[in-house]
Amino acid sequence: MSNAQAAQNRYVADLREIRFLLFEQFQLDEVLGQPPFDNWGKDEVSMVIDEAYKFACEVLGPLNAIGDREGCRFEDGKVITPTGFKEAWGRLTEAGWNALVVPTEHGGQGAPFTLFAVMQELMSGANTAFFMYPGLALGVVEVIEKYATHEQHARFLPPLIEGKWAGTMCLTEAQAGSDVGAARTTAKKLPDGRYAIQGTKIFISGGDQDITENILHLVLARVEGAPPGTKGLSLFIVPKLTVGEGGTSGGSNDVLVGSIEHKMGILGSSTCVLNFGENGGCIGELVGGTENVGMSQMFAMMNGARIAVGLQSVAVASSAYLSALAYTKDRKQGAPIDRWKDATAPRVSIIEHPDVRRMLIDMKARVEGVRCLIVKLTRHLDAVRSLAGKDDEAVAYHQGQVDLLVPLVKSYGSDQSFRVCETAMQTYGGAGYTRDYPVEQCARDAKIFSIYEGTNHIQAMDLVGRKLMQNGGGNAQAFLGDVAKFVEANAAHPALADAVGELGQAQEALAGTAMKLLGWFQSGRMALVPLVANRFLQMMSETAVGWLLLDGARIALDAQAKLPAGHKDIAFYEGKKQAALYFARNILPGVRDTANILAREDNSPMDIPSEAFASLD
Amino acid sequence: MSNAQAAQNRYVADLREIRFLLFEQFQLDEVLGQPPFDNWGKDEVSMVIDEAYKFACEVLGPLNAIGDREGCRFEDGKVITPTGFKEAWGRLTEAGWNALVVPTEHGGQGAPFTLFAVMQELMSGANTAFFMYPGLALGVVEVIEKYATHEQHARFLPPLIEGKWAGTMCLTEAQAGSDVGAARTTAKKLPDGRYAIQGTKIFISGGDQDITENILHLVLARVEGAPPGTKGLSLFIVPKLTVGEGGTSGGSNDVLVGSIEHKMGILGSSTCVLNFGENGGCIGELVGGTENVGMSQMFAMMNGARIAVGLQSVAVASSAYLSALAYTKDRKQGAPIDRWKDATAPRVSIIEHPDVRRMLIDMKARVEGVRCLIVKLTRHLDAVRSLAGKDDEAVAYHQGQVDLLVPLVKSYGSDQSFRVCETAMQTYGGAGYTRDYPVEQCARDAKIFSIYEGTNHIQAMDLVGRKLMQNGGGNAQAFLGDVAKFVEANAAHPALADAVGELGQAQEALAGTAMKLLGWFQSGRMALVPLVANRFLQMMSETAVGWLLLDGARIALDAQAKLPAGHKDIAFYEGKKQAALYFARNILPGVRDTANILAREDNSPMDIPSEAFASLD
Repeated sequence: MSNAQAAQNRYVADLREIRFLLFEQFQLDEVLGQPPFDNWGKDEVSMVIDEAYKFACEVLGPLNAIGDREGCRFEDGKVITPTGFKEAWGRLTEAGWNALVVPTEHGGQGAPFTLFAVMQELMSGANTAFFMYPGLALGVVEVIEKYATHEQHARFLPPLIEGKWAGTMCLTEAQAGSDVGAARTTAKKLPDGRYAIQGTKIFISGGDQDITENILHLVLARVEGAPPGTKGLSLFIVPKLTVGEGGTSGGSNDVLVGSIEHKMGILGSSTCVLNFGENGGCIGELVGGTENVGMSQMFAMMNGARIAVGLQSVAVASSAYLSALAYTKDRKQGAPIDRWKDATAPRVSIIEHPDVRRMLIDMKARVEGVRCLIVKLTRHLDAVRSLAGKDDEAVAYHQGQVDLLVPLVKSYGSDQSFRVCETAMQTYGGAGYTRDYPVEQCARDAKIFSIYEGTNHIQAMDLVGRKLMQNGGGNAQAFLGDVAKFVEANAAHPALADAVGELGQAQEALAGTAMKLLGWFQSGRMALVPLVANRFLQMMSETAVGWLLLDGARIALDAQAKLPAGHKDIAFYEGKKQAALYFARNILPGVRDTANILAREDNSPMDIPSEAFASLD
Repeated sequence: MSNAQAAQNRYVADLREIRFLLFEQFQLDEVLGQPPFDNWGKDEVSMVIDEAYKFACEVLGPLNAIGDREGCRFEDGKVITPTGFKEAWGRLTEAGWNALVVPTEHGGQGAPFTLFAVMQELMSGANTAFFMYPGLALGVVEVIEKYATHEQHARFLPPLIEGKWAGTMCLTEAQAGSDVGAARTTAKKLPDGRYAIQGTKIFISGGDQDITENILHLVLARVEGAPPGTKGLSLFIVPKLTVGEGGTSGGSNDVLVGSIEHKMGILGSSTCVLNFGENGGCIGELVGGTENVGMSQMFAMMNGARIAVGLQSVAVASSAYLSALAYTKDRKQGAPIDRWKDATAPRVSIIEHPDVRRMLIDMKARVEGVRCLIVKLTRHLDAVRSLAGKDDEAVAYHQGQVDLLVPLVKSYGSDQSFRVCETAMQTYGGAGYTRDYPVEQCARDAKIFSIYEGTNHIQAMDLVGRKLMQNGGGNAQAFLGDVAKFVEANAAHPALADAVGELGQAQEALAGTAMKLLGWFQSGRMALVPLVANRFLQMMSETAVGWLLLDGARIALDAQAKLPAGHKDIAFYEGKKQAALYFARNILPGVRDTANILAREDNSPMDIPSEAFASLD
């Protein structure tokens, strides 16, 4: 591998863009320096971003290809993770990264969620597979912190936050994937108030590893006699090894690893079949002490996990984009377009070629668009925490937007991530198909994002079946109103008016399709709803992204106008403008076009008989 | 792996659909039983299809996952192919598959190209990586047959057709990928009329293997003093081992394997760096004896290779689709839609769920649409051969359509193939991401199709920069005219009228965009052409596919009306209709919508300064 190649294989992120979102567009400053973020000012946030980036580049990035090549092994009933993962975990937890977002009363640093999100993006961008281990542990911390008893807090939070233990979420069973309520794992109450757990869970990320001394599994199971479906599920804390006095790890808790999956990507992350209580010796305790509320408790973790998938999505997409960008600057081939027939013309960097530039701006707009969507969501989350107890109406508004945006971030984010990785490979040409460059791994890693933590169709049904109607439709109305306000305020913007016009049409088309959806629900034409759900989610996401990119462009142009000639940010702000224009002209019109397609109420997927899909003997 | 899983991992193709295309829609019968296809009747064609399918299922399919897991190894300067490949080659050539399409005067069976295409699809669908070895050998046969001298025919064709030797095409160099004309490999004329070859070629598929006794490389090189660019390239026959009297293979011809690539997919196909003449001992001979015509000679092979990529594309997409279809019938999960809130409802096969059906019909329409496009192309090719010397005007028409369709088949076919593989994985959920099922390999294999044999942008430029203008624009006019005729004839079709209306609008939008392209050329707004080229190619492809699917639906409905109740083809024909309606309602409108987007003449990819793509230190 040449030096140039090695340089392109280093993890790189665009911190200028991230700072723009936090401090110029989404005004994170407004919640800093006051409860619950008293200890956090702009300087502290900025410093943590730099530190996270340094850690990601120096510790995690170099292990990314190694983790992919080595993968996880399963030997003698135990999982062995790739070279360096254990040491990286040690450095991560030692540096306190596990404690960043944990509230101060639980021994954490109480950082804004937006900063936590940036940290997650940087770590996942450098090494997605590795960061699943700490990511899941932090999800477990969140559930325990929110729903467990004080006594459980005291026993379980410190070792998780210190990184002595990791954690997992155990939902899926062979017959219960998207259909979580079909879970058959059982819990039988014991005389001491604990439960005997029995059942098999599959696709458990981090289900076993050789990194931490113990693993805390959060397991959905049904207590004897509980109702069928999700309403009868309870959530249990099930350690891999029994926990003794003072948090010492004891012997086996009868949680056995059945096998690990051989996957397309995220090979450094172990994906396990876990057998609980095969020998009758698996003991768990109820999270918080209440039965049959496991699903809503797990949702706390699932929401965080879905946002985390959005972050993984933008992280890997950004890595793929910036790798491709570096390659197009380095790689020389072909004549410039104005001398394309001249075989003696000097060869240029391929970034000079129009189609390469089209791919680059397309990736830029999608990456930055998805990141906008996520920062908007996390900013609403921080507002909820900042305004809690002070302004109930504002809290309800912000929480409503969070709820609405979660499925968009997970689903649109992951779809765009794979699209960007595919485009990045295309930008490289044949080199992108080889393991000499990082983009083929990006594509393989990214493919899981549309599947796990609820497939993208589950997200779309969450949006059209629940979130749109929440609060009497008020959350969706507020969203549409916010976009409309922006359109009205900027309809005559000197540089963006046409693009804002596109956004206005997209907003109207989105509102119209939402009304149609409601009509189909009310008239009992139920099948049309899932048939259009994914595309509705895409329409809403693209309207949101178009809005946020144009809002960013407006802010960038105002800032640019104040800069002295030659300032290095002039190009940065120009990039914000051009990417927004590209998105408005090339992608936003698709919202109205899709609305027109959905209005046709095509029912062919239901009209076709199942035996007509193919004629096989 | 369960039995059900094993069954789903078997190669399967839809022969009923293939027979429909050949005999009901594209009337292959019209060219059978007469020169040059005297020996071929409908029965012979049909029997060969059955035999090819049997061979694909029994010999090649079982080696597909093995080839992927083992990959090719590079040891002691030699390539070792996966277990079973050598034996499969033996059985393939022994059964005469290498001779199928070779004209009878050269010892072949002289089959119609359409049948050859079906055979290629079936073999590639069962094992894409393996079939690249014979596929390339057949490409070499085609070039030698067309351009070499009689004396070269006699020496080189028999061992290639018999399968004693394989072949490769050596175009790409490190600095000359899409920019073929930048090739630096040199050829120095020797006193005996042969040439000393020197240079390094990369990305050579089948560049080395342990399957055949010798390999015939077709190498593009520049004779000393030849002009720069593609006009100075000549094509050489360069055997791996010297060829002695009677075709015996002798010692090394100084063609050394530098390394092999580690790729995302098609791992059973070796991809080599070849060093020619590193020790000054590599001797080649000119194809046909004329210098500086190498590029046009190579184009004969490249056209075939591009059609072959289209065939690989539909082959892998079809495999992925039919695997997913089998899985959705087998896999039970979730309640039926009319009882979705009822946790006690019996679980159904996931094919019952609307979004799964949407994915299935989407895959079906794309797979069958691309296959239509290819069969249309090969049918034109057979018409050219059938009418040669009899009807010059008809030959010109058919050849014009071939030229026009080649970039569509390669580029649209490969893009759709990857899209279908992605959808197939999504249909499986988490299982699709694992190696227990074949679809993740399909996706990894398929990704190369948009890159090699000329990237899809190169194809798009071939379309808008050359093919559209060919014959004074006559070929494109004939295509648009054919679509218009269909629209006019079927505007009042009882079942398809609305869909035909969509096609009419697509055709008009396509014609309008072609005029705009011409305008940009003429007014010197050159950058707009490559910026829109890929999307224009997609518009044209989708117009063509929409037309062909609707034409198929029309034929299917006529046939269906004549069937007695209960006939098994009723469902088959219904499937044709529904897939066509799905395409017309959901995808065809995108042609007009894209035309509107392109009419905006967005120049943002050129307006953005290169340094504004990202702010990196």
